[in-house]
Amino acid sequence: MKHHKHANRKIGLAPGTLVYTGTEKDSKGTIRLIEYNKDIYTEKENASAKDIQPNNNVNWINIIGIHDLDLINAVSDKFELHPLVREDVVSTNQRLKIESYPDYIFTTLKSIEYNDKRIDFKQISIVLGKNYIITFLEEETECLEYVKKRIENKNGRIRERKEDYLLYALIDAIVDSYFVTLEKIGDDLEALDESIIQEANEDNFYKIRQLKKELTFLRKTIWPLREIANFLDKEEHKFITEQTKMFVKDLYDHTIQVIDLTETYRDLVAGSIDTYNSVVANRMNEVMKILTIISTIFIPITFIAGIYGMNFAHMPELAWKWSYLGVWIIIVLIVLFMIRFFRKKSWL
Amino acid sequence: MKHHKHANRKIGLAPGTLVYTGTEKDSKGTIRLIEYNKDIYTEKENASAKDIQPNNNVNWINIIGIHDLDLINAVSDKFELHPLVREDVVSTNQRLKIESYPDYIFTTLKSIEYNDKRIDFKQISIVLGKNYIITFLEEETECLEYVKKRIENKNGRIRERKEDYLLYALIDAIVDSYFVTLEKIGDDLEALDESIIQEANEDNFYKIRQLKKELTFLRKTIWPLREIANFLDKEEHKFITEQTKMFVKDLYDHTIQVIDLTETYRDLVAGSIDTYNSVVANRMNEVMKILTIISTIFIPITFIAGIYGMNFAHMPELAWKWSYLGVWIIIVLIVLFMIRFFRKKSWL
Amino acid sequence: MKHHKHANRKIGLAPGTLVYTGTEKDSKGTIRLIEYNKDIYTEKENASAKDIQPNNNVNWINIIGIHDLDLINAVSDKFELHPLVREDVVSTNQRLKIESYPDYIFTTLKSIEYNDKRIDFKQISIVLGKNYIITFLEEETECLEYVKKRIENKNGRIRERKEDYLLYALIDAIVDSYFVTLEKIGDDLEALDESIIQEANEDNFYKIRQLKKELTFLRKTIWPLREIANFLDKEEHKFITEQTKMFVKDLYDHTIQVIDLTETYRDLVAGSIDTYNSVVANRMNEVMKILTIISTIFIPITFIAGIYGMNFAHMPELAWKWSYLGVWIIIVLIVLFMIRFFRKKSWL
Amino acid sequence: MKHHKHANRKIGLAPGTLVYTGTEKDSKGTIRLIEYNKDIYTEKENASAKDIQPNNNVNWINIIGIHDLDLINAVSDKFELHPLVREDVVSTNQRLKIESYPDYIFTTLKSIEYNDKRIDFKQISIVLGKNYIITFLEEETECLEYVKKRIENKNGRIRERKEDYLLYALIDAIVDSYFVTLEKIGDDLEALDESIIQEANEDNFYKIRQLKKELTFLRKTIWPLREIANFLDKEEHKFITEQTKMFVKDLYDHTIQVIDLTETYRDLVAGSIDTYNSVVANRMNEVMKILTIISTIFIPITFIAGIYGMNFAHMPELAWKWSYLGVWIIIVLIVLFMIRFFRKKSWL
Amino acid sequence: MKHHKHANRKIGLAPGTLVYTGTEKDSKGTIRLIEYNKDIYTEKENASAKDIQPNNNVNWINIIGIHDLDLINAVSDKFELHPLVREDVVSTNQRLKIESYPDYIFTTLKSIEYNDKRIDFKQISIVLGKNYIITFLEEETECLEYVKKRIENKNGRIRERKEDYLLYALIDAIVDSYFVTLEKIGDDLEALDESIIQEANEDNFYKIRQLKKELTFLRKTIWPLREIANFLDKEEHKFITEQTKMFVKDLYDHTIQVIDLTETYRDLVAGSIDTYNSVVANRMNEVMKILTIISTIFIPITFIAGIYGMNFAHMPELAWKWSYLGVWIIIVLIVLFMIRFFRKKSWL
Repeated sequence: MKHHKHANRKIGLAPGTLVYTGTEKDSKGTIRLIEYNKDIYTEKENASAKDIQPNNNVNWINIIGIHDLDLINAVSDKFELHPLVREDVVSTNQRLKIESYPDYIFTTLKSIEYNDKRIDFKQISIVLGKNYIITFLEEETECLEYVKKRIENKNGRIRERKEDYLLYALIDAIVDSYFVTLEKIGDDLEALDESIIQEANEDNFYKIRQLKKELTFLRKTIWPLREIANFLDKEEHKFITEQTKMFVKDLYDHTIQVIDLTETYRDLVAGSIDTYNSVVANRMNEVMKILTIISTIFIPITFIAGIYGMNFAHMPELAWKWSYLGVWIIIVLIVLFMIRFFRKKSWL
Repeated sequence: MKHHKHANRKIGLAPGTLVYTGTEKDSKGTIRLIEYNKDIYTEKENASAKDIQPNNNVNWINIIGIHDLDLINAVSDKFELHPLVREDVVSTNQRLKIESYPDYIFTTLKSIEYNDKRIDFKQISIVLGKNYIITFLEEETECLEYVKKRIENKNGRIRERKEDYLLYALIDAIVDSYFVTLEKIGDDLEALDESIIQEANEDNFYKIRQLKKELTFLRKTIWPLREIANFLDKEEHKFITEQTKMFVKDLYDHTIQVIDLTETYRDLVAGSIDTYNSVVANRMNEVMKILTIISTIFIPITFIAGIYGMNFAHMPELAWKWSYLGVWIIIVLIVLFMIRFFRKKSWL
Repeated sequence: MKHHKHANRKIGLAPGTLVYTGTEKDSKGTIRLIEYNKDIYTEKENASAKDIQPNNNVNWINIIGIHDLDLINAVSDKFELHPLVREDVVSTNQRLKIESYPDYIFTTLKSIEYNDKRIDFKQISIVLGKNYIITFLEEETECLEYVKKRIENKNGRIRERKEDYLLYALIDAIVDSYFVTLEKIGDDLEALDESIIQEANEDNFYKIRQLKKELTFLRKTIWPLREIANFLDKEEHKFITEQTKMFVKDLYDHTIQVIDLTETYRDLVAGSIDTYNSVVANRMNEVMKILTIISTIFIPITFIAGIYGMNFAHMPELAWKWSYLGVWIIIVLIVLFMIRFFRKKSWL
Repeated sequence: MKHHKHANRKIGLAPGTLVYTGTEKDSKGTIRLIEYNKDIYTEKENASAKDIQPNNNVNWINIIGIHDLDLINAVSDKFELHPLVREDVVSTNQRLKIESYPDYIFTTLKSIEYNDKRIDFKQISIVLGKNYIITFLEEETECLEYVKKRIENKNGRIRERKEDYLLYALIDAIVDSYFVTLEKIGDDLEALDESIIQEANEDNFYKIRQLKKELTFLRKTIWPLREIANFLDKEEHKFITEQTKMFVKDLYDHTIQVIDLTETYRDLVAGSIDTYNSVVANRMNEVMKILTIISTIFIPITFIAGIYGMNFAHMPELAWKWSYLGVWIIIVLIVLFMIRFFRKKSWL
Repeated sequence: MKHHKHANRKIGLAPGTLVYTGTEKDSKGTIRLIEYNKDIYTEKENASAKDIQPNNNVNWINIIGIHDLDLINAVSDKFELHPLVREDVVSTNQRLKIESYPDYIFTTLKSIEYNDKRIDFKQISIVLGKNYIITFLEEETECLEYVKKRIENKNGRIRERKEDYLLYALIDAIVDSYFVTLEKIGDDLEALDESIIQEANEDNFYKIRQLKKELTFLRKTIWPLREIANFLDKEEHKFITEQTKMFVKDLYDHTIQVIDLTETYRDLVAGSIDTYNSVVANRMNEVMKILTIISTIFIPITFIAGIYGMNFAHMPELAWKWSYLGVWIIIVLIVLFMIRFFRKKSWL
């Protein structure tokens, strides 16, 4: 997992210098403009920075492809965004955060995708200003599409509210998508935990250990979500209306639930690893018992056979008629005694 | 354990959309109306939303079956509950919480049931408003019945108080039921801990590990109880009278005791798992000792027998008269020496 | 250990209902009245609730036997104690706490006794009001007797002070008794820790693990002591004089020292368990080494003996004159080589 | 690693006594003077303390070689630095800190270098006063050179700002260099983690354990960074302008990210060690299985061969025609049975 | 280690009763009076309590031997020290603390000595009043002698300051001596950590475990140092001048560094114990491999030898000419195959 790649591309540069730190891409970035209020809804795909016009409706400027530094700069110039904001937008290793600037609120989030025991983070930066929301995406993200659909639907609550509610709706959609991912992780965890008891093989161990590492990164990543929700809830801010505050409380609640769930899964995954180690120790014990039972029964009787395989000239027993039968009786008695001994120890 | 099932049924929906996330049920929900003051007590089973009439007594509207979304909506409309409250009422994965709305206080709790090393959570949401308490239950819950019985009894303190005391009484009954569950868990824990020392088999291990997982979930679930009790104790609120505050302090105390006990049980269960591992290591040690004693005694003497089983033409000892007896004497000496050696090591 | 028995006797009862949750007893409870000031000292054993008369001296009403609910109620009526106070007095699983009521301060403590690696808790509730102290004891407790003796002694500081100093003296005596118990635990811990190195047998392991469990409960139990000492130190309260405050600071100090010591012992006991596991692993290692040395030396030479025990018609060596001696030489060489090999590995 | 050498050279000396605690060096320290504003830029290598002249531009006095106590004293006298500041400058074991003096802010940082699984810390102390920044370096450090290059570039933002922005730029460059180091550690960690699964040999273990120790020291060292960033962000201070504050928030953000990353790596390295132990236990299990399979198959059949190697006069089977074949059949059956048994246990 | 001996000598006594809890001694305690200001310096060994005369210089009354209760009382009477102060002075198990009394500040510290993996604590209590410092020592302590030497030196800063600076100088000297001890512990830790890798024998294990226990006690003991430094830094107090405050900040810094270092060493010692366990597991693995290699090679070929040692009348191979050679060829092939198998598993 390369969670921290390309960090050093920035070394030695001035703060506010734009350096895209994600995967290289050839394509250009695109802008999608959505303008709506209670009555109207217009949408423009593949818009350019020049198409952005001030108006009194809610304007959602959705920029897909933060690797396109020219595009980012063009839009940022339009809204006079601070150099540090621009830097954060394109720096894909950015920590989740929210900051208040005089003319806008800036927040950085991550959408997460979970495939094959690996979590991928995609950065989503959002700027909330007077009458507009700008979203900067690494690539198109499913969870934001749901919000778009709710806006398209004329009767949704979202159409009656302003851009602060849209900000809430976007963050809420991202947090909701965390639940989906956590549910999948939870299912994998449970499946692995079950399978460990069935067969504690190394393959299961590597999977569970991979999950543990991913949860370590997930926890680190989503931890600051709490600060973001708290900021929106507690801070006095001209951009957030009282009406939206009630919903923000709900968002805060969900945020804490997400963090709690991550912590709980970390506990569970640690428990699974402990179980794995206990199961391995148990198996070892069983292996040792089998070895000990077989050895302890056969080594003494093999010794007896060895004794009468000796070639001494004077071994009176060799000549006796019933000594062969006698040896067999002794052997059977030893075996029976051993079996009883292991029964008493509950090994058999 | 499916603690998080159906979370994704909500993905893409607007906040405040009602989605029941618990087990599907066919039956309709029911309403039970209880109205009382110091002198009167009336009860109406299977009431409908229309039966709810404003009055100056304490009205307890008990709704059983939160899967019945129509019923929830009908009652919620009557009391003008916020969309987010309705959403939380039917969302069975809701985190425990308490929130203050202008006309009411809303709190979400869980009753717990413990059977066969598994804890089941049932959601209980309570709305406290002027002259009324609404309880939304997943299904009928024993602990609330005790409160009903105390109301029926004309001489109980509860009849002399208002709806804020009823809220306290309901929460107190739920918290008290946690003690019962924790006591059962404590008994199981002690029994398992004892049995581990007797026989550290895998069955006991799986049981104790199941308990650990349940305690992890229990801890996560009841942790916010502290906030709820603290909210009722500290917050200035028109709904809570001074007289009830004294009792709320007691509730806070019980809440902390429940959380403490859960933490203590988590410590104990971790201790039991450590004990299990130590016992397994000890058993392994014992197995190894038996193997080593038998091998170390018989391998050397078997070698001696092997030597005199060789068929060389020129082995002078074979012809000697006393060599067979001599070999036996050597063997006995070796065995005695070995036994003394193991005695000295306290293995025998 | 039954730290939580009978908790469910309370389920379904109204708050403030008196239910004794300790061990059943047949005997009646007793009251001992002590009245003193700088000059006078009177003591009345086996007093009844009626003997309690208001006066301006310090009155210590010592009630022994909280299972006697009638007695508790009689005394509580006399001082108009709140129903929740009465409930807490007789509920032996009560968490340590301190609460301020309009006319009195109520605090619940535990005396501890340590015998044979087990800690027993006995509940002590104290009510401090104007001119009186009521102590409710599960049974007579040695540490409070020391305070009584200091009162009897006319020249003690305690005779010159009021009831707030008596409260301090009682709590201080209880906290001091914790040091005695912790010292005993510390001695046991050290003895066990030493003995584990000598012989890491299961008996020592069970003892140390028992100590760990007891320390877990002890820690949970005495943790709220800090809040009690802090309450007395920080809270403005008409019952605590400035003069006594200085002593309360000292009490707070002792309290923290007790908690620190418990934490330290928990660390030490965890260290002892780790040591035990390391010692067991070491012993296993030694066992394995002996087995490996014996097997590795004798298995190859037994094979050689086996070879020449074969009955092939054409085995030229069998007929050679020096081959028997030759085989012995080879065997000795193998043994010497093996011994050198193990020497090099520092196994011998 | 000698992270704490020479600490005792100070014992018994008065506070404020200058004692250099780093590696001894023969060379003299050097001063580099940089003076700039929006329009001018002058640089003077190998300056002396006398060359420092007050002016209204930004003056960066860069002192390399804190072992040269005379030089430190000469410069400190010029700016009237407090004895404790001078002591801290030359004491290379100094904890990271920031302190506000009447005429200047003093901060101590460390640059880090990572080579061959070891982290080296070099101390950097910075004094920010009116129109000047003094940097005291143990030796020349790459990350500060980047800042110098940005100053040289006439068009950089840094040239338009004052000395408070330079302080920010210096600290930011140091924090950025931490990311580079952490990235290298992250790569090593991942490589080691992979290699452990391939071959859990002791060499890998010692490397990972070395990394763990280094991360322990790194965490201890950079932990106070948070306080430094917080101090610059929160404290009212005449030296820090509003304009720079925005950048300080960004610095605070990076600081927390560095600390988070260190914590995450500590978690990962702990996970790697757990993996190592699990892999070792697994390998042991596999070794035991092979031993058990071979022993359990061959020991019984060797016994049978032993039986018919006995030399009794009366062993009827020996004379039978088909008994040799019969013995082989029995042996084959035993082997087949054993193989089936191990198949069932999934050992083969 | 007897860190808690004699605690019970106090049980049942009134607070403020003087009980010496350290090692019994026969000798009498001694007083050393030092009086100084910028110009004068007088010193009087073996002074008596009567020699203490009020004056306007700084008076350092150094009492050595807190077991001499008469002496303690005589000096305490002179300065009217509170009974609890006296009790704390002679109670050697006292927790580190600082307390503000109307006429003086009272603080209790410990000097530490480290010998042969054991830390010894000696109590030092200091009273700072108007124009005087009283130090109560268990026995003469080196670190305070350094302060005395600095006072003797006419040109030291200490001679120009008042008693508050002396208090700072004394505490600073004690904290500095902690660094020396921690450095020694760090050296021992590193040496042990290295030696564990060389030979993980029980002796090294007991030493490292001893260090762990000592660090547990050390951490518990010095933890409150933070509060003491913080008290001096933050609290408004007539005894501490502004001028000294600057130095107190430095002391606070050192204090945190000492605590950090202790924590770091605890982490390192825990890491060493983990290493020890890993090394032991590795060694076990190696032992098992040797046993398995030898057994797995020789057990099958011994079986073959056993087969042809059977005495059946009809064993056609026995008579064949080349069968003896054939058996040897089979044996060599088996051995080669096994060696290849172990090579593939990288065991050889």
